[in-house]
Amino acid sequence: MQENIKSKRMGRQTVRLSSPPRILATTSIVGPKEGDGPLKDYFDIILSDDTNGKDSFEMAESSMLQRAIIETITKAELTPGEIDYLFAGDLLNQLISSNFAARNLEIPFYGLYGACSTMTESLSLAALTMDGGFADYIVAATSSHFSSAERQFRFPLEYGSQRNELAQWTVTGAGSMLLAKEGDFPYITYITTGKVKDYGIKDAGNMGAAMAPAAVDTIINHFKDTGRGPQDYDIIATGDLGKVGREIAQNLIKEYGYDMQDVYIDCGEEIFEHERQSTNAGGSGCGCSAVVSCGYIYKNMLKGRFKKSLIISTGALMSTTSSLQGESIPGIAHAVAIEMD
Amino acid sequence: MQENIKSKRMGRQTVRLSSPPRILATTSIVGPKEGDGPLKDYFDIILSDDTNGKDSFEMAESSMLQRAIIETITKAELTPGEIDYLFAGDLLNQLISSNFAARNLEIPFYGLYGACSTMTESLSLAALTMDGGFADYIVAATSSHFSSAERQFRFPLEYGSQRNELAQWTVTGAGSMLLAKEGDFPYITYITTGKVKDYGIKDAGNMGAAMAPAAVDTIINHFKDTGRGPQDYDIIATGDLGKVGREIAQNLIKEYGYDMQDVYIDCGEEIFEHERQSTNAGGSGCGCSAVVSCGYIYKNMLKGRFKKSLIISTGALMSTTSSLQGESIPGIAHAVAIEMD
Repeated sequence: MQENIKSKRMGRQTVRLSSPPRILATTSIVGPKEGDGPLKDYFDIILSDDTNGKDSFEMAESSMLQRAIIETITKAELTPGEIDYLFAGDLLNQLISSNFAARNLEIPFYGLYGACSTMTESLSLAALTMDGGFADYIVAATSSHFSSAERQFRFPLEYGSQRNELAQWTVTGAGSMLLAKEGDFPYITYITTGKVKDYGIKDAGNMGAAMAPAAVDTIINHFKDTGRGPQDYDIIATGDLGKVGREIAQNLIKEYGYDMQDVYIDCGEEIFEHERQSTNAGGSGCGCSAVVSCGYIYKNMLKGRFKKSLIISTGALMSTTSSLQGESIPGIAHAVAIEMD
Repeated sequence: MQENIKSKRMGRQTVRLSSPPRILATTSIVGPKEGDGPLKDYFDIILSDDTNGKDSFEMAESSMLQRAIIETITKAELTPGEIDYLFAGDLLNQLISSNFAARNLEIPFYGLYGACSTMTESLSLAALTMDGGFADYIVAATSSHFSSAERQFRFPLEYGSQRNELAQWTVTGAGSMLLAKEGDFPYITYITTGKVKDYGIKDAGNMGAAMAPAAVDTIINHFKDTGRGPQDYDIIATGDLGKVGREIAQNLIKEYGYDMQDVYIDCGEEIFEHERQSTNAGGSGCGCSAVVSCGYIYKNMLKGRFKKSLIISTGALMSTTSSLQGESIPGIAHAVAIEMD
């Protein structure tokens, strides 16, 4: 027993899952703008109206997240009553998107906050809980919404304030993954948990740069802990560093001797066609890596195009209060390795 | 293996831990008002100044949480580098108390939001992760601060707004627990994970009533899942229902046939002397059940006064935005059973 326990841990930040949880089903729901972007064919549901028929953007986001969760459970021919845990979080103050999505589901629930790192945070904790033997089925999910985020973190939309060229565009989207103990589906093999890193960047208009060092730290430690490198993956995807942060991350990682060029994408860079869609440095938000993972990456794994994927959702951990108080922006990133025979 | 896995789950919401994690050390830090209350002899550190020497109440809270974490690790004669995971959360938007507390610790970190249920949420996830075999040492922690919460959720302190008689007083406090795989210390035996419950209460000035049904649901399901009842515990402590919520909870539970009268306390009711300290319906905040658990309950377990304890931290999951939009207040409660031979 003792030996088995020890063998799960590989180095400081990584664990190897001894009974790798399967990703039985996923759902990605996006808004009209994301549905007009380069990855549109990979999303399950494209909303024609980003209010989703609700009176507020917050409740629109929550309803989108709830729909993603229910859709995923239904796809797997299960009912909410058969799901042992729901792990979810979002960007809104006090997680109202997730909390209100969970309130009619009657599923034991843990709320998480990791800013835009939430997809891999929820997936990591779901995988640990399942590999630990505590559950047969777990849902991991997250959401973000351009309009609820914009007015909470920046300005009322009605101001029409200008965006600087390094600014990112919060993705309107919700992603949900259902884990199961068995089946012929992509499975989770390694979890590398991030540490909070802060390199003193204070510009909330350039979050890619603030989050890049956290992504680099997690990726390098994943390689060190597992003995793997970029050559072992068909795709390595950071969450929402955008164009600027992606370049920083790629260059920093090269300094450690790893050349990721052939396999590295950033979900925030891929989701929009930036010039045509005026999305500046790229997409961001919890929903960004969520819908790209649940859509583009998962579906390409099922098709056999990607056999080994490493997803690293990235979060900037400031609040409007901490920024107004002159604090810098801490970042975090969690990595999850997903494989398919 | 399969059999062992199945045996961990008991009913819909509860798991039994097969290798019960030990609580090796705890720390409770409180502000001057809490340090003047009935439980003052049980707290490790009483601040004489609730700014803790910082420029803002938010950073005061964060520094208090960081101190609680470091103090706990030091008590166990360990270093942050030996801690495998930190699970923490707080009430502040985007968890700035926890995120900033974590940024110099270099410990793999998962941020949680469960409002005032965070102590048992963090403890539950820490215990599941350890029992699953992924870690040797884990810290679970949370904090709240009267002045940072008051201005975020209610009014600027300078308004001097009147408080209604059902209002609660956010505890200034941080609590931290360190779990280890072995040792002669109180150990965690059962985890009952809460579901989000919403009974339509909209009065944010009466959160005890909003949270009581969630506490009742979790307690009743804990009893059903484990076959236990109030007679099996020396103390059953809800988080911060206050006087009003505690009475509601006790009466509702009696309707299910369980008489908790002899063993039931509410941390929010115990922490202040309400008339003298003008705390109306009682204490609240993540820090409330945290410092009462880390202080009063843990220390009485070490003394042998309590052999079996059930702690149920309780959270109200609204935000100022959801309340302004006319939404009701969902609640959640997670139960953790702690025992000492």
